Amino acid sequence: MSGESLRRTIGRIGPVDEEARARALAWQDDLTKVPGSLGELEALGVRLCAVAGQCPPPVPAPGFIGVFEGDHGVQAQRVSPWPQEITYTMGVNLAGGGASVSVLARHAGADYKLYNVGGLRELPAGERIVNCRIAAGTADLTQGPAMTREQATRALEIGIGAAEEAVADGARALAPGELGIGNTTPAAALIAAYTGSDAETVTGRGAGADDGMLARKTRAVAQGLQVNDVAHQDGLGILAGVGGFEHAAMAGFILGGAAARVPVVLDGVIAVSAALAAVALAPDAAGYLFAGHLGAEPGLAVAIEGLGLSPIIQLGMRLGEGSGAALALPLLAASAKIMREMSHFSDGQVSSEREE
Amino acid sequence: MSGESLRRTIGRIGPVDEEARARALAWQDDLTKVPGSLGELEALGVRLCAVAGQCPPPVPAPGFIGVFEGDHGVQAQRVSPWPQEITYTMGVNLAGGGASVSVLARHAGADYKLYNVGGLRELPAGERIVNCRIAAGTADLTQGPAMTREQATRALEIGIGAAEEAVADGARALAPGELGIGNTTPAAALIAAYTGSDAETVTGRGAGADDGMLARKTRAVAQGLQVNDVAHQDGLGILAGVGGFEHAAMAGFILGGAAARVPVVLDGVIAVSAALAAVALAPDAAGYLFAGHLGAEPGLAVAIEGLGLSPIIQLGMRLGEGSGAALALPLLAASAKIMREMSHFSDGQVSSEREE
Repeated sequence: MSGESLRRTIGRIGPVDEEARARALAWQDDLTKVPGSLGELEALGVRLCAVAGQCPPPVPAPGFIGVFEGDHGVQAQRVSPWPQEITYTMGVNLAGGGASVSVLARHAGADYKLYNVGGLRELPAGERIVNCRIAAGTADLTQGPAMTREQATRALEIGIGAAEEAVADGARALAPGELGIGNTTPAAALIAAYTGSDAETVTGRGAGADDGMLARKTRAVAQGLQVNDVAHQDGLGILAGVGGFEHAAMAGFILGGAAARVPVVLDGVIAVSAALAAVALAPDAAGYLFAGHLGAEPGLAVAIEGLGLSPIIQLGMRLGEGSGAALALPLLAASAKIMREMSHFSDGQVSSEREE
Repeated sequence: MSGESLRRTIGRIGPVDEEARARALAWQDDLTKVPGSLGELEALGVRLCAVAGQCPPPVPAPGFIGVFEGDHGVQAQRVSPWPQEITYTMGVNLAGGGASVSVLARHAGADYKLYNVGGLRELPAGERIVNCRIAAGTADLTQGPAMTREQATRALEIGIGAAEEAVADGARALAPGELGIGNTTPAAALIAAYTGSDAETVTGRGAGADDGMLARKTRAVAQGLQVNDVAHQDGLGILAGVGGFEHAAMAGFILGGAAARVPVVLDGVIAVSAALAAVALAPDAAGYLFAGHLGAEPGLAVAIEGLGLSPIIQLGMRLGEGSGAALALPLLAASAKIMREMSHFSDGQVSSEREE
């Protein structure tokens, strides 16, 4: 029955382990370094303990990057300078190993797959391709709901299934990625709706909009919010109204990770918009999220702040696909190894006593 | 003859390859991504091409972290809250694999060794320990030169030898690290001298100085600059006057890397002070440097700017040892793999044509 897997997964998501977090803080201060001197790397390790309910934490590796692909009816409003055909050709390229996220996944020792949840075209069969299309693109969100609630639920459940399969296959960190020409427009609309921000605040240039296109895109976001009456929708209604198939599947993938108590590393503006949807459905999911990087898109900073996160990498990236999350995975693993492998003051070899 | 290896190494350091840099910029724009969308990661890859004189660049791995250890006469002015014994006990811990940099080196797949160039105590023999002490600590830089020019030259040449041996053993990226209670004081003095900054601007709390200690430390830096008349010294004279054995050896290690056309990744305030010394001796060495991270110590930002660099990681770390550089090594390697492994628009599979 549709919706059953979603309900069960939401029911499994509990708060992170505050007792493990407290032990982790004490553990950090016993490692042979000046307390706090590893900065945010210490905070990441502490959060991994809370996620896993263990101190020291398990190393969050290998990672798995679930890349979800969709097309967007709102491209009728000319919100991206790129032809929709690129969703297909980049999908083939990504699954073949030649996209940015393909390279960065291999570098991180992470596996990845491409799930076609809503592309205009069916992808060819391939080792890393999962064809599970719900529709050939969304409807135009400026004219009405982009998806039905039923479609959004199916996309969420595809994401949940992808996360469950990855964890069963040994993944110990998940990162949702995406492909979809035009998909920063629904992302901006989702961020605006879930954080109560204006379209102007969260809409950016995506993959290269000029001034005229940015103005059209901002109007499309504002119109989508109004037409779909997001102020009076529940979490699923917002997602169906102004989201995309890949956004919904990523939200499910995030929920699946949180239910499995596995850290979920977010990429850019699409991933954080999906994370806001996931947290709207299951507020405790927020504790399992890590912000991979801070990119240039304005909605990203708004969403990261809304989620209470701190970005791991700040290199001005704005590529998407999951690339910023893939690049962050080794740093997250490093924060766990610091806690597992460093010597302790209490071992007695190194003194923690100051002279004065 | 002392000084011969230093002169020969300086003579081998030439400018980075501007022609390879130009090819790299064009190469980046042909990769299947929106041009510029990988932000600083693209800039890192372009710089690796200029360093190696090849496009795409060789992957800068495996790395080698040369950790140099020394003690400091200026500790007579009580500039660090930690007993000097810690230099020895942390050295044993680091070589045994339990220090922060030991863990992060393993994580990066990098080898490391500890060179005792100027510790108060001889280290026990060990697989990763190189005992090559020039003296049992420096003299107090507030009373006269910390080292003689001859001693500084010997330390430089130990660093050069360490770099040459690492590269001969297969290292393709070098990172200088350090251990030495009190060594942020000579680092601040070096940064002030080489960049023409005030003691107040560049002196920080190091590994935990309180307000009173910070004031003493700032006075010690100012006094050291004055007593050693740094304004009228050459590059080597500044290094000998207000530096430390590990700072001088790290400067030599950097020169050795630049002479071998291998990228050199800097850690915190000690490493960048050594880099300023290296660049004073061989200005073209600047082109081979990468700033691993931006930490909290105020002199670090001053030196990074003075060197014209941009930090790879910004996680508020301030531990030293080489830890920030070790953590940055995988990101630098990622920037090279992006250039080597991504598909190209010119292959014809993915179009780079916009619709408008």
